[in-house]
Amino acid sequence: MSTSSPQRIALIGLGTIGISMAALHLSRDGNIVDVFDTRPDFEDYISKMLPIYIRDSQKQNSDAGASTSLVASLVSSGRLRIHSSLESACASATIVQEQGPENVDWKQSIWAQIEAVAPLSAHFWTSTSGIAASIQQRQMHDKTRLLVVHPFNPPNIMPLLEIVPAPETSPERVEFAREYFSVPGSRHRPVVIRKEIPGFVGNRLAFALLREACYLVQEDVVDAKDLDTILMASLGPRWAGNGVFESYQQGGGEGGIRAFLEKLGETMQTVWDGQGRVNVLGDEGIEWKEKVIAQVDEAYGTLSAEQIQEKEARLKDFVRIQTKKYTPDGLE
Amino acid sequence: MSTSSPQRIALIGLGTIGISMAALHLSRDGNIVDVFDTRPDFEDYISKMLPIYIRDSQKQNSDAGASTSLVASLVSSGRLRIHSSLESACASATIVQEQGPENVDWKQSIWAQIEAVAPLSAHFWTSTSGIAASIQQRQMHDKTRLLVVHPFNPPNIMPLLEIVPAPETSPERVEFAREYFSVPGSRHRPVVIRKEIPGFVGNRLAFALLREACYLVQEDVVDAKDLDTILMASLGPRWAGNGVFESYQQGGGEGGIRAFLEKLGETMQTVWDGQGRVNVLGDEGIEWKEKVIAQVDEAYGTLSAEQIQEKEARLKDFVRIQTKKYTPDGLE
Repeated sequence: MSTSSPQRIALIGLGTIGISMAALHLSRDGNIVDVFDTRPDFEDYISKMLPIYIRDSQKQNSDAGASTSLVASLVSSGRLRIHSSLESACASATIVQEQGPENVDWKQSIWAQIEAVAPLSAHFWTSTSGIAASIQQRQMHDKTRLLVVHPFNPPNIMPLLEIVPAPETSPERVEFAREYFSVPGSRHRPVVIRKEIPGFVGNRLAFALLREACYLVQEDVVDAKDLDTILMASLGPRWAGNGVFESYQQGGGEGGIRAFLEKLGETMQTVWDGQGRVNVLGDEGIEWKEKVIAQVDEAYGTLSAEQIQEKEARLKDFVRIQTKKYTPDGLE
Repeated sequence: MSTSSPQRIALIGLGTIGISMAALHLSRDGNIVDVFDTRPDFEDYISKMLPIYIRDSQKQNSDAGASTSLVASLVSSGRLRIHSSLESACASATIVQEQGPENVDWKQSIWAQIEAVAPLSAHFWTSTSGIAASIQQRQMHDKTRLLVVHPFNPPNIMPLLEIVPAPETSPERVEFAREYFSVPGSRHRPVVIRKEIPGFVGNRLAFALLREACYLVQEDVVDAKDLDTILMASLGPRWAGNGVFESYQQGGGEGGIRAFLEKLGETMQTVWDGQGRVNVLGDEGIEWKEKVIAQVDEAYGTLSAEQIQEKEARLKDFVRIQTKKYTPDGLE
């Protein structure tokens, strides 16, 4: 089955990521989305939340008054189907995607149940941020069907999807997922990770930087807010336009990253040797925790809905500019 | 002397950073900039390069034909003075700023020479990325005058200036530098780093992430280009709009970063325990180097002038959007 033909996607677990995925799948002509969640107010919740993400996904201002009728019209046209059992949600799926609790037992159990009720050809995707497909698939009979499709928060704006197969996942199913998110016009940028590793790639990079950030606050080199300012005033915009490797390829001039590593090698090694080895669990190396939490609370408090809206609008602008074309004449 | 009154800045060493700093200082009404460099074609070089950065700094399209006359008119009005000796360049300075070679002996020697010829009240700034003020000042009599003002590449666009005093630097001189770059209308965001530490803050954060990136390429988890795509499709735009701490404050919802650390603590500790300990110098842990260099060369080659121009135009857009105002009505 080609990825460009309409799919029928069963979404299991409709938290923020699930709702956002529903909006994404519904933005493709002809797709049918079956949703299942155990929350008691499920239908009301869908009617209230889905329009917000569909509006984002279509990049249009929607009339707030039309929100609930949008879901009603999707339901009456048969494109959105709200289910009260896992079995009926999965019965006709070409793709089953779960966004349930980050709990090994729950994941293993749900996939065994899904395997028993979904069509034999259906693709199985988990949106987990931390539990590898090879762990989730342990109670399944056919281990070639499951892979991780890890979105990044907020998933309705962030282009990244980390596709992480288990060693037993079939290459065809990996390619199907990659293609599905790569169709022309897609705002998403799927990347296949070749090996299962805790945190996959995005969070490993983020946590490596975070660890040093926590150390620098612990040592009173800088406070949390000033560290954030430093990141936003330098590495953030740099890495929004260039990856880390391309940045240093450019930084090295004609000699590229090799010249950069030679020139900065001594400073780099000194920094690497002196990196903070703080911890987040256990009893040692956790002196940073209360200090960081206190400074972050003082600097930002609880973000208001309006602040989050502004941040999301700005984030959309950043993502839009990533694909903006610059002609030589139009360059400032 | 107030930072809002015009300053007379002697710039010693006019590479990319020096030229960019000249443009920055000249963008302030009334400032006089004295430049000194030992390159033989110094005057021609200034006439050719400075207009490019002044154009950037004014955010205006300039008539390329007017380029050389711009420098001639700055010189004839007395705002730009091109010197052939260190002594004459520094003679009337209120600020002396050096952007010379990253070499301890050179830095120590130049500051001793500058101290001997500059007015007693002049502020001394070094644009070094790696040699602490406390090391550079060793041959000076008055060690309270020198501090680091570290810009980020490309300095004509990047807002960050890391201000890093030595323990002996006077607080008044630190505050003077911070204020100078904070005047209304300044595009710069100076941050004072409280303690000298190798790499300061920005490069420590960058190198922490780079180390893990090199490890992931070494282990064939992902190739260099896909890793760059991951960074650009997630953390880059996130950190362009939010610092790392604010991102996780938001990510934790009502519970803030404390809730985030509790929820993600296990994955985070697993990632931290398994971080790559690769090296850039020495014989051990350098298996990544040739692999990374080969993949980066293959992915990007040597960037053309046109590519760099496009990247700089995009970077300016990112920085512009950081300070864009979003009204609730205007939110998409």
